[in-house]
Formats: sequence, C-alpha cells, structure tokens
Amino acid sequence: MATSQPFAARLREAIERSGSLLCVGLDPSGCAGAAEAERLCAEVLEATLDHVCAVKPNAAFFAQHGSAGWAVLERLRARVPSDRMLIVDAKVGDIGTTAEAYAGALFDRLGADAVTVNPLMGEDALRPFLEWPGRGVFVLTRTSNPGAADVLERRLDDGTPVYAHLARLAVSWDPGGAVGLVVGATAPEAIAQLRRVAPGATLLLPGVGAQGGSVEAAITAGLDAAGAGVVVSVSRGIANAPEGPAAAARHWRDRIDAARQGALAGR
Amino acid sequence: MATSQPFAARLREAIERSGSLLCVGLDPSGCAGAAEAERLCAEVLEATLDHVCAVKPNAAFFAQHGSAGWAVLERLRARVPSDRMLIVDAKVGDIGTTAEAYAGALFDRLGADAVTVNPLMGEDALRPFLEWPGRGVFVLTRTSNPGAADVLERRLDDGTPVYAHLARLAVSWDPGGAVGLVVGATAPEAIAQLRRVAPGATLLLPGVGAQGGSVEAAITAGLDAAGAGVVVSVSRGIANAPEGPAAAARHWRDRIDAARQGALAGR
Repeated sequence: MATSQPFAARLREAIERSGSLLCVGLDPSGCAGAAEAERLCAEVLEATLDHVCAVKPNAAFFAQHGSAGWAVLERLRARVPSDRMLIVDAKVGDIGTTAEAYAGALFDRLGADAVTVNPLMGEDALRPFLEWPGRGVFVLTRTSNPGAADVLERRLDDGTPVYAHLARLAVSWDPGGAVGLVVGATAPEAIAQLRRVAPGATLLLPGVGAQGGSVEAAITAGLDAAGAGVVVSVSRGIANAPEGPAAAARHWRDRIDAARQGALAGR
Repeated sequence: MATSQPFAARLREAIERSGSLLCVGLDPSGCAGAAEAERLCAEVLEATLDHVCAVKPNAAFFAQHGSAGWAVLERLRARVPSDRMLIVDAKVGDIGTTAEAYAGALFDRLGADAVTVNPLMGEDALRPFLEWPGRGVFVLTRTSNPGAADVLERRLDDGTPVYAHLARLAVSWDPGGAVGLVVGATAPEAIAQLRRVAPGATLLLPGVGAQGGSVEAAITAGLDAAGAGVVVSVSRGIANAPEGPAAAARHWRDRIDAARQGALAGR
C-alpha cells in the first residue's frame, strides 16, 4: 500500500483485506540464539499472516542477540507483505538528531510502517517521526504494569491524569492519521477515557492473553464512533498456544470480531 | 574494575585514574555508512581515552545503519578499556521480560557498564537493570529540550515538578550506588533542585558544548557535599572541534576541573 496515504488509512485497508483487528506480536524470549529466534518468528508469521492486520516485533528480543539479532529482524521484515502493517515496538524516546536517527533506522532502514514512541521528553520526541508521510506513531499512554501507578496514573496540578495529558498532547501534534495510542487492555475505564480524549486515534491494545485482560471489555471501551479504531495485539498467547499459532490466531481474530459485533449490537 | 563493587564506586575509580570528570559522547551522525561511523568513532576514542572517565555511545546513530551499525558498536566496545566506564545511551523504557531482554542486550551482550533509562513506566522499567551487580542506570529527569515543558516541567497535584518526582522515585529504588540521574546542563536551577532531592546520586550532565549550556553554572549546582558526583558529557563539541578531538577533550577536561575547583573555593 502506497505511503502516500496517511497511516490510519493504510491500517484501515490492512484491516479490510485481512478481515481482522488482530496484531500478532513477535516476542521471541528464551531463545538460545539468533537462529532459534528467527526460526520461531518465521513459523509464527507463516501460521498467522492470513489472520492478522499487523505484525509487531519487540526490538528488545532481537537486540539481546546483538547485531545477529538485528539482522534477524531485517530478514523477518521481508516476510511481512505490504498489505500488512509492520509496527516495530521499540518505545523510542529521544529528541533532535537522535530521534531523527531512530526514525531513519526504523522507517527507512528497517521499513517499519509504524513505531511505538515514549512521549516523556515532549513534542521533540515525536516530531521527527511525524515528518515521515504514511508512517504511524503509537504513543505510550496508560500501560498495564503495576509501575503505571508511579507516574502515568498520577494527576497533574490541573487534575488531569498524566496518561490523559500525554494522549491529549499527542493527538494535538497529529498532522492527520499518523498518531495512535498504546493503552493496556487490562484497564477498560482508562481505554474509555482515552477514547473520549482522542475520538479519532487508533488504539493499540496489548495485554490480552498472557497478561489476562478481558478483550470484550477493552474493545467495548475502545471502539470509535464508526465502530473501528482498535487493534488488539497478542504475542505469547499466540506463539505459545498449545493448539499452535495458526489456530490461536484464528481464535483471537474471531473472539475480537465477536466482541466488536457484541459491542456494536449493544449500542 | 571488578563488577563486585557498586557502579558508583567503579565510576569514582575511573574518575581518579583518568583525573577527569569528562565523558566523551559518540554520536556519529551524518555518516554515509557503518564503516564511516566506525572510523570516526575509533579516531575520537583513540584521541580522547586518556582524558575521559567514561564513553557514551548513542545507540540511535549505530541503529540507523541496521545490523552493520550494531556490529560497529560491538567492536567499539572492545576499544574501551575496563578502567573507563561505558555508558550506552539508549533511553530504554519498557517492562517485564522486555526490560530484562534490554538489560541482557546492553549489560551482558554488549558489555555496558551503565545505560540510560526512561522512567515513564515506573519501577518495573528500572528494576531488571538494578538486578545486575556493579552496573549503573542513569534515569532521565530534566532534559534540556523545548519539549521538556510538555511533561517533565509540569507539576503534579502535590506541587512537585514531574522531573523531581521521577528523581525521588529513582533514588528510592536504588539498591546502593546504581542509580544516577540525567539532567540537562542548561538548567542550573533544576540541577540544584535535583542535587537536593538526590544528595548521593551521580548526575550525568549532557548539553554543554554544542547545546550551549554553561559548564561552570552546571557544575557549581551539581557537585555533591564531597565535591564530586558529577560527570559532564560532550559529544559534538569534541568530535567536531576545529582543534581536533584530543585537544578538545583536554580543553573540556581542564575547563570542567577548573569549574569544580572554583565552585569548591567559593563554598
């Protein structure tokens, strides 16, 4: 799909072609070496590409194998067809020429369609990524870990939770269809609040499956006015499923779709 | 130096051996390829190692050359002797097994003595790094970019600036001599406040030289009660200096030392 379209339109097209709101995460942990990580990820990709709109490799699990791991990520990229979105989860958070270098590394060199970004350092941390036409930036807002209470759930002096402040800022910087939000799927009330703050942004929801969030509650809270705008990411719940990754991906795709239909019927 | 000592003690020893509070940053921007980045960084290292206590490569400028760039970083690591500290500037900010994988990638695989970490996701983002004996974590607090006003300089509902809250949390998680703070050198009043919040933490001060901070004001504000606890990082101000990197590193080392002597004489 041409990058002359905004990322949100490209993602919508990927969702339509695949008929799926599921993103498969590639988190090859516990591998003895880069070769094992590559084999595992290639198997998961082959088994799941028909059932997902996007693929989200987590950079950490490739970086832990050094330059050999980075080379695996480069080869895996070539296995993801252009009608599926590649979201590289690196939670990059830097500024100036450093942020420009990360944008070049991930969008140009690696060919990512979107990346995850940490907004702690403010607008400068996002701007270099937003200058790439057709590419997307998923901004961390409310995560599902216990440490979210340390910073993200604290309130600013105007009463706004930090995570909602981050979302409001990120959306205000969106040149159009480039900014999405990462929201842990375990907190439906936070998802609902972020949907109000950001009516048009795509919400990327990790944390169902292994982390135990309710996909039904998360989707009901996250769908936008048009009944879309949500992508659910599942990693270990697919790669480590006893029934195999293909069956697990079909299961999650269908469960997510049923949750969406149920939420729309209940409106 | 044995990693059986806490990182703060190892850094102190590196400062004593080198007689320098200067850290040379490796930010090879604008290189046509990985080979050029390697050549430039090797030249800077050779010219400056006698005059610095630490070396801080910025991961972004290696990642932009893909796996070949990561391999450059691995080879450069071998050029830094064990009595100088290698601080990898990657501003990692993730949790759980992902943070564990980054700690493995940077401490074990790459052999970093310390890393920079983004604390937005709370304690979980730091904990896996703090479990490595002898290694250090420099936590982002108050950066020197305009976007610092968006989040870091905002106040929480108890009146605390976000950056001071981050510093207080990070110090409270320190098992002993592992946690330092990254503070932009351009804001001496913020440096002074963070020194009060964290009397014993090492402050890593980037932003002198190319970014124009006053090294004298930053050092006066940052020195701890013992007249130590500060490391000043200079990147482009050394690599791009018209007088060459060796002369520039000597200049910065002496200027930082004079600023320290001046601050102590003024007490």
